[in-house]
Amino acid sequence: MARVLTPQSEDFPRWYQDVVAKAELAEPGPVRGSQVIRPVGYAIWERVVAEMDARIKATGAENAYFPLLIPESYLRREAQHVEGFSPELAVVTHGGGKPLDEPVVIRPTSETVIGEFMAKWVQSYRDLPLLLNQWCNVLRWEMRTRLFLRSAEFLWQEGHTAHATEDDARAYARRILHEAYEDLMVNVLAIPVMVGLKTVRERFAGANRTYTLEAMMRDRKALQMGTSHELGQNFARAFEIDYLSAEGRQEYCWTTSWGSSTRMVGGLIMCHGDDNGLRLPPRLAPVQVRVTVVKDGDGVVDAAAKLRDTLRDAGVRVGFDDRTDVPFGRRAVDAELRGYPIRLEVGPRDLAAGNVVLARRFDGSKRPVSTDDVVATVLETLEADQRALFDEANARMAEYTRDVATLDEAIEAAGDGFARVPWSKVKAAGEAKANDVGVTVRCLVRKDGSVPDSEDEKGLVAYLARAY
Amino acid sequence: MARVLTPQSEDFPRWYQDVVAKAELAEPGPVRGSQVIRPVGYAIWERVVAEMDARIKATGAENAYFPLLIPESYLRREAQHVEGFSPELAVVTHGGGKPLDEPVVIRPTSETVIGEFMAKWVQSYRDLPLLLNQWCNVLRWEMRTRLFLRSAEFLWQEGHTAHATEDDARAYARRILHEAYEDLMVNVLAIPVMVGLKTVRERFAGANRTYTLEAMMRDRKALQMGTSHELGQNFARAFEIDYLSAEGRQEYCWTTSWGSSTRMVGGLIMCHGDDNGLRLPPRLAPVQVRVTVVKDGDGVVDAAAKLRDTLRDAGVRVGFDDRTDVPFGRRAVDAELRGYPIRLEVGPRDLAAGNVVLARRFDGSKRPVSTDDVVATVLETLEADQRALFDEANARMAEYTRDVATLDEAIEAAGDGFARVPWSKVKAAGEAKANDVGVTVRCLVRKDGSVPDSEDEKGLVAYLARAY
Repeated sequence: MARVLTPQSEDFPRWYQDVVAKAELAEPGPVRGSQVIRPVGYAIWERVVAEMDARIKATGAENAYFPLLIPESYLRREAQHVEGFSPELAVVTHGGGKPLDEPVVIRPTSETVIGEFMAKWVQSYRDLPLLLNQWCNVLRWEMRTRLFLRSAEFLWQEGHTAHATEDDARAYARRILHEAYEDLMVNVLAIPVMVGLKTVRERFAGANRTYTLEAMMRDRKALQMGTSHELGQNFARAFEIDYLSAEGRQEYCWTTSWGSSTRMVGGLIMCHGDDNGLRLPPRLAPVQVRVTVVKDGDGVVDAAAKLRDTLRDAGVRVGFDDRTDVPFGRRAVDAELRGYPIRLEVGPRDLAAGNVVLARRFDGSKRPVSTDDVVATVLETLEADQRALFDEANARMAEYTRDVATLDEAIEAAGDGFARVPWSKVKAAGEAKANDVGVTVRCLVRKDGSVPDSEDEKGLVAYLARAY
Repeated sequence: MARVLTPQSEDFPRWYQDVVAKAELAEPGPVRGSQVIRPVGYAIWERVVAEMDARIKATGAENAYFPLLIPESYLRREAQHVEGFSPELAVVTHGGGKPLDEPVVIRPTSETVIGEFMAKWVQSYRDLPLLLNQWCNVLRWEMRTRLFLRSAEFLWQEGHTAHATEDDARAYARRILHEAYEDLMVNVLAIPVMVGLKTVRERFAGANRTYTLEAMMRDRKALQMGTSHELGQNFARAFEIDYLSAEGRQEYCWTTSWGSSTRMVGGLIMCHGDDNGLRLPPRLAPVQVRVTVVKDGDGVVDAAAKLRDTLRDAGVRVGFDDRTDVPFGRRAVDAELRGYPIRLEVGPRDLAAGNVVLARRFDGSKRPVSTDDVVATVLETLEADQRALFDEANARMAEYTRDVATLDEAIEAAGDGFARVPWSKVKAAGEAKANDVGVTVRCLVRKDGSVPDSEDEKGLVAYLARAY
């Protein structure tokens, strides 16, 4: 069989490019840094959106939509924020054939414009907490781009909330971190994540605290999968988001923001994909089972269609391939590329024996299954593969996370995995030194694995890695 | 009770502004022509999206995502298209702190950029039809804007398809028109629509044919609710979308595009709303039944919560209002403003008698219902109200559509409703004259109500009206 993808061991970035192109997930757009998400890739994103949206709503947040274009002056109101985002802005200078009085920028993120409206909507403590989320596109002018992972325009959700107290803001920022992000990543994407606090150097422009979820890809580099920020009263002061407390005092709110993006699709590809293509975790997969007609004849197509309907009735997301004019080998290669968890091959010979062939994408195994047992077997296999993908990724993360005692050892270990080192051995000076050689502090975690409130806490552990 | 909204009869545009503001649906954004869609308004849009997306997918189209920014040169490739959209473009001239080599525009619609990729993806007749859709924001620099109805940035779906033959393209453009758009508008939004062909003067910039769905608002003006275009081979030639036919010839494709937007939310408000606020059709309503605790005591809150859960289990979308610290009258006014189809009022006295009060938003009626019958009664009432809203709007459209024989009579009749006049009495010259006095030809229809292929067909009827 001709090689479809560059093997991961040979050139991982090339493998990634190959699989994104060959599985028809996405391709570069006409303007530098832009991307076209093709139907196969977009279907994956739609499933992520559905699962994430349900989790976000379960925390009480409501969806809204704020404008794409933001007056440049809004960004300047928060000093750290404008400093962080200025270099990445796209500026609209002309509209309707005329120069604009004030240039406007395409949102790189929406803290500022949403802050402006929160200030209007929040009057009293009764209006708090205000929990908003939006699904939208944002744009950050990036020079080194990579499909899904780093593109100028990307799709994401950005949540923005206002609270009466710092405690409430912190509890909510952490609730999203664990109940929405971590839960989705672990239980749907089957991606284990290290959940921790970003260092001051790595935190969001305008935040007091940034929490993060870091995953290990198959090349042992880290990918930041999502972040949740405590913005303190920084934006509340800049945009006058204040409220009348129950005690009759005017107080500034405490705000949060949190985001996750199409980058998760990149993470999914790089965490589970192998030399034959994608491997999609069954709970996420837009198509969980691909029913494939091997060749026509003796009522095979009818039997396959019936099997499709039976599986659909059992709640399985089913695809159907009866393109018997396309060589079976090519269809099998395509199916592996696309990462359908299960292929059911329906052919005349097996069918005569009362069987179909179940091909498992997870391990490439194939075996005949009696048509009487096929639904039960499919459901069991989907559950088993969900677990198996997670376990495999988790074992890899454990294997390639090394405990070290010094900064130099950490930088060395970060050459092939995560280095776990006492934060006291790194600190801001060590972090700068690591950055110089392309290694970053991905997050800080307490010894018991919980998420710290401050990098000044005693006994913290730092995770260092090379990252996307 | 203090007047919350300007009455429709007094000032319809002011009523519209009032209801959009007071029901917290949307408000103007900071940049001219932009809008913020608030959670109450966005929940309505999410329901429209869910229903429309399912219908679009049922026709075989797949979702994808194309870039926000388009090279200005792309628009110039189709002469009619650039002429139509040039005056409305927002132009990005700077990115990442530097002037761009070539200015790029924010998409006003995506025929051009999608055409560029269709040309890559379509090689042979086996790749056809190619059926794509995307949900996104677009921007057209508008000077006179109105929330939901006409805003610079708006949210929509835009479908783009490529076909081997003109017949196939036409059949698909009409399939979307009827099976997705008309079906959703009639059966979910409860809005009757006149479905017809746009005149050459009114058609989309770059199209050979534009089909439209026109609804009558409560002020008897028309609102275009959606359009579907046959683009002929215009974009196929401009972007070289061609294919190798089964006979081995290189042929240009026939393409279509079709769109529907947040404008439908404006139509929903203006078609069904009354002096007390929104009236949402039950099949669309994000909250179909609002369970309201009148006042606490004697296990009322528990009983109300149980009722909420019972209704939810029966598949009803339920909201819950136990804010007994807010005066009941104010909560009732709010509920009417928001247009929940049914309010169930749970109070101690009724509950002691085994009843709750069912308040129907459609006609403002109230009656006690036994708690034993409440689920069945709710389900029946929701069905009845869905029909009643449609019937009311349909009767209005019939009443205010006048058959006339001349252009002058048509212009006069269009002062308060739709004028139906033989197209032979209007034609291009009459249309220009009508336009001068603010009346437009909304669509052309055959005598039997079907949709014509050309304005040159004999015996066509024209609908003239004032429009949004």
